[in-house]
Amino acid sequence: MEQNKKRILTGDRTTGRLHLGHYVGSLKSRVELQDSYDTFILLADVQALTTHFEHPELINSSIYDVTMDNLAVGLDPAKVTFVQQSQITSIAELTVFYSMIVTVNQLRHNPTIKTEAKNYGYADLTYGFLGYPVSQTADITFCNANLVPVGEDQVPHIELARKIVRKFNDLYGTSIVEPEAKLSAVGRLSGLDGNAKMGKSLGNAIYLSDTPETVWDRVRNAVTDPARITIKIPGHPEICNVYKYHCVFNPDEKDDIADRCRNAQIGCVACKKRLNEVLNSLLDPIRERRAYYEGHREQVRELIIEGTRRANQVGNDNLHAIKEKMHVLI
Amino acid sequence: MEQNKKRILTGDRTTGRLHLGHYVGSLKSRVELQDSYDTFILLADVQALTTHFEHPELINSSIYDVTMDNLAVGLDPAKVTFVQQSQITSIAELTVFYSMIVTVNQLRHNPTIKTEAKNYGYADLTYGFLGYPVSQTADITFCNANLVPVGEDQVPHIELARKIVRKFNDLYGTSIVEPEAKLSAVGRLSGLDGNAKMGKSLGNAIYLSDTPETVWDRVRNAVTDPARITIKIPGHPEICNVYKYHCVFNPDEKDDIADRCRNAQIGCVACKKRLNEVLNSLLDPIRERRAYYEGHREQVRELIIEGTRRANQVGNDNLHAIKEKMHVLI
Repeated sequence: MEQNKKRILTGDRTTGRLHLGHYVGSLKSRVELQDSYDTFILLADVQALTTHFEHPELINSSIYDVTMDNLAVGLDPAKVTFVQQSQITSIAELTVFYSMIVTVNQLRHNPTIKTEAKNYGYADLTYGFLGYPVSQTADITFCNANLVPVGEDQVPHIELARKIVRKFNDLYGTSIVEPEAKLSAVGRLSGLDGNAKMGKSLGNAIYLSDTPETVWDRVRNAVTDPARITIKIPGHPEICNVYKYHCVFNPDEKDDIADRCRNAQIGCVACKKRLNEVLNSLLDPIRERRAYYEGHREQVRELIIEGTRRANQVGNDNLHAIKEKMHVLI
Repeated sequence: MEQNKKRILTGDRTTGRLHLGHYVGSLKSRVELQDSYDTFILLADVQALTTHFEHPELINSSIYDVTMDNLAVGLDPAKVTFVQQSQITSIAELTVFYSMIVTVNQLRHNPTIKTEAKNYGYADLTYGFLGYPVSQTADITFCNANLVPVGEDQVPHIELARKIVRKFNDLYGTSIVEPEAKLSAVGRLSGLDGNAKMGKSLGNAIYLSDTPETVWDRVRNAVTDPARITIKIPGHPEICNVYKYHCVFNPDEKDDIADRCRNAQIGCVACKKRLNEVLNSLLDPIRERRAYYEGHREQVRELIIEGTRRANQVGNDNLHAIKEKMHVLI
């Protein structure tokens, strides 16, 4: 965690265990970047409460689950900093400060808010949800993060965050870092059931902590080319969910598998068995590391507490400098 | 500050010195209540920034001015607790938590927000301003205040605060105190110039720290009964601004003065001179105490810092209990 490294702010909502969708979309790249950047991983438990406020009992176990999943994929506890959002007072303080310089209109024009407003009605949105881009700006800037790994759909949030920071710096003469989006190349992982998205609520998720039996169950039941009712009929990999997974998790063999499918040289069962092997060879070391941390829960707790302590120090130092510029220190 | 006393939360925005309007509307009753209640006086510097964010340099001196004015009217530093809002992290944390359970609609229906939205346009409101009732609820409840002295126009805010607290307690099983409004009997003090309100921006304020010369200047120029051009014409106290002030600040003599005015037995100049005496006999001891604190600025600073430290401890203890119920403590 050298001082001259740029800081990345990333994280997960603590609403349950993480799955292959999270791995492909974010965790894999975290592991690759952990040597080059000072990585802060936000355990977003306050944000989790915005949608799960009626089931707070799930939040606590999810804080551990999300941390263990991050460690299990290969994040090195000596290199990354786990940050429990609800314990970082400077995030709440910045949220309040930024609230003063963002108009309701700016928030209403944010695409995510627009979509939600369309789905659920604008008036029924909670005040906190409307302010999601404001609190996200606080999440990013309490530690002066330089980069935020995001998907294409999150870019407007980062743009608004930059705008807020610029206006705040102009107004008070502060030096809060303007964060930049670090676009991730990999897209969203679709479900093996053909659903466009992998998600807990869709019942199609393969969790990083799933047993080999569960993984095989998901793979075995995957929807392939529906026209291919016997092994002798040539298949169409381009419409096959299993093939999509080979592309993501088994790139070396994907062309060969596509050829053999089109030429009716490999059946769906064999193709699924191969995918199952590939997934388990990815998941085996993850399971192993996860088992270790499950057996050392106190160590996980210490990691979260120590990371959060470090983050609070960084945040409080920044807030002190900000408050000085705001002339509220007496 | 005994534990069995009920707690009052009151305070002032730190946007400048306090005037007679503040005295009549709030400070006077604070002094009367300080023995019966554990009084927290919020120096609302964050809230001041919501409207004065372009002049943060005024905030700092105002923090001292407001504190000194409170001390000058007779609040006993051994009895009351001064609380600098921007330094109380639990207020910001509660604001964020409450944000999740209040809808945009509830805020839009709040009379104050409605009025502002009508004057300035809803879309141009800042997000923070829209959330004013939310942050006010946090101001009141971080220390589990039982009572909030307010004017009639503030009652809807307290009603919403109670609603938020009830919902939050229901959801998480917390025990945050539902605050009650303590209606103040005295209304708003109109300006001596005939303006319905005394205010800094109206240029008609008599500050608690004004010199006798300035006070006389304001009183001398007061608008009285415009029909009474000579002392021989009977006056109409019911439309006279000076008489209104006699009613508030000189209640024992007010009936006698009204009679003499109606009977042309007292002229406007004499009547103003009497009011001037009355005001100065109120302001003289206030000026004296203020002079003491102006000469002991470091003592004022210590009072604010020590009060804020105490308030932070109260707030952090409450937040700890709240977070425990929210299952975010690991």
